[in-house]
Amino acid sequence: MSEGNADLPSSDAVRDLNVAVVGYGYWGPNLVRNFANLHDARMHTVVDQSADALRKVRKLYPAVQVTQNYEEVLANDEIDAVAIATPAQFHFPMAMAALKAGKHVWLEKPMTETSAQAEQLVHEARRRGLVLMVDHTFVYSGPVRKMAELIHGGKLGNIYYYDSTRVNLGLFQRDVSVISDLAVHDFSILDYLFRREPTSVSATGINHFAGTPENLAYITLFYDSSFIAHINVSWLSPVKVRLILVGASENMIAYDDLDPSEKLKIYDKGVSFTDDPEQIYQMRVGYRVGDMLAPTISGTEALQVATSHFVDCIRRSATPITDGRFGLRMVKLIEAATRSMQCRGETVSIETWKAAE
Amino acid sequence: MSEGNADLPSSDAVRDLNVAVVGYGYWGPNLVRNFANLHDARMHTVVDQSADALRKVRKLYPAVQVTQNYEEVLANDEIDAVAIATPAQFHFPMAMAALKAGKHVWLEKPMTETSAQAEQLVHEARRRGLVLMVDHTFVYSGPVRKMAELIHGGKLGNIYYYDSTRVNLGLFQRDVSVISDLAVHDFSILDYLFRREPTSVSATGINHFAGTPENLAYITLFYDSSFIAHINVSWLSPVKVRLILVGASENMIAYDDLDPSEKLKIYDKGVSFTDDPEQIYQMRVGYRVGDMLAPTISGTEALQVATSHFVDCIRRSATPITDGRFGLRMVKLIEAATRSMQCRGETVSIETWKAAE
Amino acid sequence: MSEGNADLPSSDAVRDLNVAVVGYGYWGPNLVRNFANLHDARMHTVVDQSADALRKVRKLYPAVQVTQNYEEVLANDEIDAVAIATPAQFHFPMAMAALKAGKHVWLEKPMTETSAQAEQLVHEARRRGLVLMVDHTFVYSGPVRKMAELIHGGKLGNIYYYDSTRVNLGLFQRDVSVISDLAVHDFSILDYLFRREPTSVSATGINHFAGTPENLAYITLFYDSSFIAHINVSWLSPVKVRLILVGASENMIAYDDLDPSEKLKIYDKGVSFTDDPEQIYQMRVGYRVGDMLAPTISGTEALQVATSHFVDCIRRSATPITDGRFGLRMVKLIEAATRSMQCRGETVSIETWKAAE
Amino acid sequence: MSEGNADLPSSDAVRDLNVAVVGYGYWGPNLVRNFANLHDARMHTVVDQSADALRKVRKLYPAVQVTQNYEEVLANDEIDAVAIATPAQFHFPMAMAALKAGKHVWLEKPMTETSAQAEQLVHEARRRGLVLMVDHTFVYSGPVRKMAELIHGGKLGNIYYYDSTRVNLGLFQRDVSVISDLAVHDFSILDYLFRREPTSVSATGINHFAGTPENLAYITLFYDSSFIAHINVSWLSPVKVRLILVGASENMIAYDDLDPSEKLKIYDKGVSFTDDPEQIYQMRVGYRVGDMLAPTISGTEALQVATSHFVDCIRRSATPITDGRFGLRMVKLIEAATRSMQCRGETVSIETWKAAE
Repeated sequence: MSEGNADLPSSDAVRDLNVAVVGYGYWGPNLVRNFANLHDARMHTVVDQSADALRKVRKLYPAVQVTQNYEEVLANDEIDAVAIATPAQFHFPMAMAALKAGKHVWLEKPMTETSAQAEQLVHEARRRGLVLMVDHTFVYSGPVRKMAELIHGGKLGNIYYYDSTRVNLGLFQRDVSVISDLAVHDFSILDYLFRREPTSVSATGINHFAGTPENLAYITLFYDSSFIAHINVSWLSPVKVRLILVGASENMIAYDDLDPSEKLKIYDKGVSFTDDPEQIYQMRVGYRVGDMLAPTISGTEALQVATSHFVDCIRRSATPITDGRFGLRMVKLIEAATRSMQCRGETVSIETWKAAE
Repeated sequence: MSEGNADLPSSDAVRDLNVAVVGYGYWGPNLVRNFANLHDARMHTVVDQSADALRKVRKLYPAVQVTQNYEEVLANDEIDAVAIATPAQFHFPMAMAALKAGKHVWLEKPMTETSAQAEQLVHEARRRGLVLMVDHTFVYSGPVRKMAELIHGGKLGNIYYYDSTRVNLGLFQRDVSVISDLAVHDFSILDYLFRREPTSVSATGINHFAGTPENLAYITLFYDSSFIAHINVSWLSPVKVRLILVGASENMIAYDDLDPSEKLKIYDKGVSFTDDPEQIYQMRVGYRVGDMLAPTISGTEALQVATSHFVDCIRRSATPITDGRFGLRMVKLIEAATRSMQCRGETVSIETWKAAE
Repeated sequence: MSEGNADLPSSDAVRDLNVAVVGYGYWGPNLVRNFANLHDARMHTVVDQSADALRKVRKLYPAVQVTQNYEEVLANDEIDAVAIATPAQFHFPMAMAALKAGKHVWLEKPMTETSAQAEQLVHEARRRGLVLMVDHTFVYSGPVRKMAELIHGGKLGNIYYYDSTRVNLGLFQRDVSVISDLAVHDFSILDYLFRREPTSVSATGINHFAGTPENLAYITLFYDSSFIAHINVSWLSPVKVRLILVGASENMIAYDDLDPSEKLKIYDKGVSFTDDPEQIYQMRVGYRVGDMLAPTISGTEALQVATSHFVDCIRRSATPITDGRFGLRMVKLIEAATRSMQCRGETVSIETWKAAE
Repeated sequence: MSEGNADLPSSDAVRDLNVAVVGYGYWGPNLVRNFANLHDARMHTVVDQSADALRKVRKLYPAVQVTQNYEEVLANDEIDAVAIATPAQFHFPMAMAALKAGKHVWLEKPMTETSAQAEQLVHEARRRGLVLMVDHTFVYSGPVRKMAELIHGGKLGNIYYYDSTRVNLGLFQRDVSVISDLAVHDFSILDYLFRREPTSVSATGINHFAGTPENLAYITLFYDSSFIAHINVSWLSPVKVRLILVGASENMIAYDDLDPSEKLKIYDKGVSFTDDPEQIYQMRVGYRVGDMLAPTISGTEALQVATSHFVDCIRRSATPITDGRFGLRMVKLIEAATRSMQCRGETVSIETWKAAE
């Protein structure tokens, strides 16, 4: 039986960029699958402590090398980039070691456990001219990119608020709170969509089970304007909800990530005010209710866009959208929200990002 | 043509209780319709300043008297009870006048603008032995009564949280904030369902339009336990959402008031913890995912139940579920939440209700 | 207490048109409510055999006269028009008597039990110059009028099919089959939207309970083109479905009557064909998937539009959209579908409407 | 870098059963993925005419052999079973060749283009003692297995009807009609759930585009009882619908395959009849409306259950649920429905399966 290799010529012109993925638990398999499907990258090695995990890799990807020893990856000159999908506590040491070994680095979110660590990684990557990207996947999804297009194009008018509900049952995590795990998605979407930095945060939340991090949290972000953002995240909801509302003067958006066919709905609805200082029963607000439009959305998997962007930035020596400084801003927000939550909603100021650069 | 009266004998034995409704704007017509349909009450008079409003009443209910003069109602001995559906600022003076005229009083929510006013009404009604009821309608709705039955029957186990989203576009109000208008529904449901009093509140919110009250608010209520409640209310949402989630150890509830056929869903889902101090990847939380049950719910209009309860309490000299003290607790919560909102989420303690009695 | 009459002048210029409603069972109350709310008509008398029904009328509408005797209505010169909402078997004799007494007639659907009866009513009304209208309410609803606007404006391109699912639990009826009761709605929508007459029909269905008419039916209508229509109706469904799909070359429509906010969705989706006679795996159909638009729909109650149209046609001596001939076409379709259903789907031709005129 | 092989011992005891998949187009990749993931089978070879398709296989499954030559598979003694996922016209010759080469055979649906061909395959497989299974995947899905459990356990009472809507936009197919492609799913579910054979069929449908098979069809199946089944299938719908309703006397079922969390809903609803031969307005039907239960459903992919069942039947020399005779019954139904459709709904009798055995 022919192996069929001879008559199946490779379509790759330049050398493939070799990627190692560290951690084959919950998210790692998605990274491996996406890096394996990229045209101009090669899924080179998977690292995991678990022999079982590596056995699965070998069954699905016989051409990919596996190892339990991260040092081997760092020492291997064939490997250009390392994608780290381990528990958060290992992000900093593993990423720093990779940068020092001259590898480009992809880090799962949250980037690090502290903003001080994140700043060190940012500096190290900049010093060495290496690409450092944090996997804030939602920024690369079709619906969020379409929202950005609408917002940056001025289609919404004055933007009043962002309101996100992101709840479901589980997955409880030992090492991160629900803010680091779920709210950070909204932090990243907010940063990408509005390009404004919150000035302060008020958060409340609770851990119902001794010894675990908070399993639900309610976070309000204040800005230097009448824009306001609110995020409701929970691991303890009987139903899954993924609903983001954006209120504005001209058009409003509802983004339901669970709707299979119409994730994004643009409502031609608005609010305006008259100045009629009339009678007591008179309202001064006028409503406009028009059509609703659900635009076509790119169905490309967000992680495919993100991994492709990572490889592209390496090739072009460009800065990723969600670079280290982006990831650092996210860590600072997590820290501020967590501090507020521990004080039952007390407002915590957020220092400007400038300090970090 | 025969009028058909002779052969249509009345089914009423005792004298009908005569009710006057004050205010025929947004909510008044619902009160008139429900009082008109009660078996043992008679819709006697409608008061409104607007001749147009009264013309509508006469067309729909030719047998009901109309007037623009509230004093006529107070002076009319035929009238037993007054239902006040005017803007909130008139609640206190009109209710006080009615009590002093010896009328039983039904007040729309919020009961009064200040808790001090509410306390005065409570005392006046008690002193005179009159029924004072506040229209917290949701307490009388089929879904909420079914939830109460489940919770008081212990079916849910340990209750972890209450989370409500109550948003839509409009109706902006001049004289009350979104907390007084929408969040108060959740305050009343919480009070009725859990019979616990919150110890403090942290609220954030914003008014986007100068000279108007807050149009969206996010409120967290803290209790003397790990129970927590959160309420998201807005008049500025492109979509209408009415979703209450109750998280608990044995069964969880999702109550979607917009679902035409299955408003209440009981999920046989739970969370439990193991104490396995294992490996780093090990989670200590176990999930149980079972069936979902949507029980049949009484379809009787909540306002019909409430108006009937009001008349029944008058006849039996009984205390309504949502009596003056209940309404007073609601006003105190509105005051505390509003204070917190003005301080960007700063925790505000709630004095115990005892003080008010 | 003033009755408030003197200072509430009537806004009516010409004499109100007086309407009697016959039958105050399931649908009659809706007729009474709508005729009572019309500006230029007066709800004059309600006829029903049941003293209970008349008692309800008197409580809700004290100014409306009631009687158990239809003859009184026919003999009363004050009454201009009669709306008949009795069981179907009484439609013909009562409508004929009303026409002969010189009254304009509103008939509930189905117009009559046989097409022969319907033809007689059409002739009688024409001979006397009276308005005869059949209450095919859906034709007057916001979504159907919007669909007509889109279709008649050519926005859909070539229209391929109409597919309707109209099922729910109950209300079983003794005197009409599910075709007369539910499918007739689609017959009327089809007639109004497409202005084409089907050439033949194939229907299947069943009655599960001895002595009752069919409780579910599946009907296919064939036309002089590649357009096809299918209707699925049932009184025996655990869930309520009201979904109409219209497939076409340029834009397609989904009309979900149970969607509270977006009943009508217009999909910019189409199908086109290439003539590439290629390889075996090659498809010759190309899809286009674009945006979805949910236009604003008039929220006016269809029955209000219809009753107003009836009164207007009487005043202007105009022909209603759903006049007697329209109703006759519907009866003919019911007859043909029923005949086909009794022969397990055998095709039954439909004679052209011309014959009836 | 260690290959990690030495310390990752195989868990397989007996020799893996070797499977070849023929056809790597729309469905083939799902077969390859599932056979590759089975514990006790080995995905040995993929056959396809397209070099592109084989290149994809090599990238995803480097250990799997590929060839463009089916003969190689037939001649290879290592290969125990062949799964055929080619266009329908090749099913018969390829399956017959495989059986003659002593291979067990898995065939995609529809089994063959004619029932005569299907009978020949059934006989050939029986004669040689080989497993012949047709991939009617739905029979192995969690919701259908749960429905079977409910129905066979008598939980539904008397069953009145089965009603399926299975529509979406595309995928138009050149070589099969919408009956062969979509309605066949319902034929298989009906056969599996109710174990009754229809006695006749009435079908209507249309092809809107010259030279293509029917793109929508409406099919009614009649049985030796008051049970009736109806199937609505289309490739030309703007929206995707996958809704099966089962009406019965005790409990009714709605199975919405697009609902992510509650696919199956069991309604405690029923219909009963009184024999009160009363007045004209009296209905003789009583409704019972109770709770709704959505049971937990196995989330295992149906194709995983099916492929595992295939391998298991080979190992145990057992008869698959959807064996050749099952597939033959499906082909006979397709033939009968197609014949009826060509005669605009004329009833076509279905010969008993006995004849085929």
